[in-house]
Amino acid sequence: MGWGRRSDNLGDVSGAFDDHPFIRACRGLPHDRVPVWFMRQAGRSLPEYRAIRGTGTILDAIADPDLSTEITLQPVRRHNVDAAILYSDIVVPAHAIGFGLTITPGVGPEVDEPFRHEDDLARLRPLDPEADTPYVLETVRQLVAELDRPLIGFAGAPFTVASYLVEGRPSRDHAITKSMMFNNEPLWHALCDRLADLAIASLQSQIDHGASAIQLFDSWAGSLSPRQYQRYAAPHSTKVMDALADAGIPRIHFGVTTGELLGQLAATGADVVGVDWRVPLSEARNRVGSGISLQGNLDPTTILAGVDAATEAAREVLADNDGHPGHIFNLGHGVMPASDPEVLTEIVRLVHREGTVRT
Amino acid sequence: MGWGRRSDNLGDVSGAFDDHPFIRACRGLPHDRVPVWFMRQAGRSLPEYRAIRGTGTILDAIADPDLSTEITLQPVRRHNVDAAILYSDIVVPAHAIGFGLTITPGVGPEVDEPFRHEDDLARLRPLDPEADTPYVLETVRQLVAELDRPLIGFAGAPFTVASYLVEGRPSRDHAITKSMMFNNEPLWHALCDRLADLAIASLQSQIDHGASAIQLFDSWAGSLSPRQYQRYAAPHSTKVMDALADAGIPRIHFGVTTGELLGQLAATGADVVGVDWRVPLSEARNRVGSGISLQGNLDPTTILAGVDAATEAAREVLADNDGHPGHIFNLGHGVMPASDPEVLTEIVRLVHREGTVRT
Repeated sequence: MGWGRRSDNLGDVSGAFDDHPFIRACRGLPHDRVPVWFMRQAGRSLPEYRAIRGTGTILDAIADPDLSTEITLQPVRRHNVDAAILYSDIVVPAHAIGFGLTITPGVGPEVDEPFRHEDDLARLRPLDPEADTPYVLETVRQLVAELDRPLIGFAGAPFTVASYLVEGRPSRDHAITKSMMFNNEPLWHALCDRLADLAIASLQSQIDHGASAIQLFDSWAGSLSPRQYQRYAAPHSTKVMDALADAGIPRIHFGVTTGELLGQLAATGADVVGVDWRVPLSEARNRVGSGISLQGNLDPTTILAGVDAATEAAREVLADNDGHPGHIFNLGHGVMPASDPEVLTEIVRLVHREGTVRT
Repeated sequence: MGWGRRSDNLGDVSGAFDDHPFIRACRGLPHDRVPVWFMRQAGRSLPEYRAIRGTGTILDAIADPDLSTEITLQPVRRHNVDAAILYSDIVVPAHAIGFGLTITPGVGPEVDEPFRHEDDLARLRPLDPEADTPYVLETVRQLVAELDRPLIGFAGAPFTVASYLVEGRPSRDHAITKSMMFNNEPLWHALCDRLADLAIASLQSQIDHGASAIQLFDSWAGSLSPRQYQRYAAPHSTKVMDALADAGIPRIHFGVTTGELLGQLAATGADVVGVDWRVPLSEARNRVGSGISLQGNLDPTTILAGVDAATEAAREVLADNDGHPGHIFNLGHGVMPASDPEVLTEIVRLVHREGTVRT
């Protein structure tokens, strides 16, 4: 691949990209331009993705390191975003240990036999990343060799992965999951403890192979009240964050409709907290406390609406952040598949051109 | 119907139930017990509803005043809630003026030809409630004759109704709706202005026939950022609230994931703001400001989880409100169809028995 040798144009780039604006922003340190990447930057919004994706399931594509590497690199090349994010899925570890699930196009993860009883704990053995997900590690290896900028590894947070395993399919209200929390708290915690171990093993192996940062996706945590989050979800996300504390890389914690949870998301040990478009960054900063960076928070529908709407909204995000060095520009949720990728490229240019960082 | 003659056990009940605990709580006045009702208290959670509902669409049922009256009364009889809410739907006015829509079971409102262009404005003529929705007014008349407690009338807020008409079906992200806002703001405001007129006409006619309070459902307002809400939604909800100011009855304003919008929901002119379970009532009270009552905010999944979970969570809601007189106990969103109605009855008993009101 001709594109990706490490260049010197990012300054004194170390192996872990410690001097890269993305990493420095994660740590709230001064840097020379506002870093930007997009959740779901790889995928259906890109014609070059649709051209190579083939007809298999996403789990088939993830199991093909050459394909996953290329899919991961496509948006980096096209948009010049400041970080790549591994092309994978939060249910990969559970799938790899044989829990029995598929990802159905247009639906999402579907589980053959949902997790409902104590007996189901036996279906959640520990993950051995080298043996169970060698394809993920080979993809990370290839990407690290190609990339001149940070690679973000990721995993699903215990609550959100549990919600898929318990419900058996994507759910709007997570009612069965919550019933298990409320009515069988020991089983709930046992489930989440195993899912925390899966996330830790997967993330540690991605870090060992060269990921420069990790993101813990707790996409549906915002369905919980602050009290529910504290009791049923926070201990398990904290376990994941704590286990990675010594790795020395930034840990990003993401969810949507988490306005009331931002302080708790930070308190799990995150270095960076994702913010959706519902909470202005200036307000989010009050809630996470000092020393925590923020990632976000452009409304993804503004991209779909076109370059004028996206430009106006992106400028509002920059103005609201007011040059704080602890900011990684991103959407508040993933890129919508029908988005025009040229609008995304234009937003990257705008952020790099107009974003300011106070020193 | 043997049940429903006005009784004297609520004290000095006037025609408009001004002394009823529900109305007094809406006004933040002292009263003798915490009032409670449930959004979607009528409907699929009740076996007596399933027994009489028949096989027609919900729009057919709404067009049958005897049936709608009975469906509205069922949960009042069974649960002893403090208010009835008219059995209807937020798309009834648009349907009644011939916009062309159906409500598909398991899906929601579906529009034959979605609203997309200036030409579509001609499809939104004014509502003449007596001519267009005589069945709604007959239902209100029957209910007012039967009930010994307040009847809540309702309408959809312009933003939420517009999202159905523009998307053509229920949407998670409201992307087409937002594209119209961003890219054709005059058309957006023209659409919402007509929908505000529909809501005003419908609500005023319900009040004229005896509704004692109204609720404006802006269920999906929480998909908007504070800035988007202020620019694109608030002016139209304010128009509705202002038009009803002289009616002298409480105006309730409801949405979900509206934590960042609570102050703006109050500022439209609402007397009561609905709060979902994501924001503790004590925090919500700071956001709406003094003089505004709150309605909520039990997580509906706790009802589904059973009496123990619901009891614990209901006590937390009462404790968090701490006896403030401006509180109507409710769920944070509608009753889930699979809920056991006996749990709902038990929560009404609990609120009436354990709820305290500071004087």
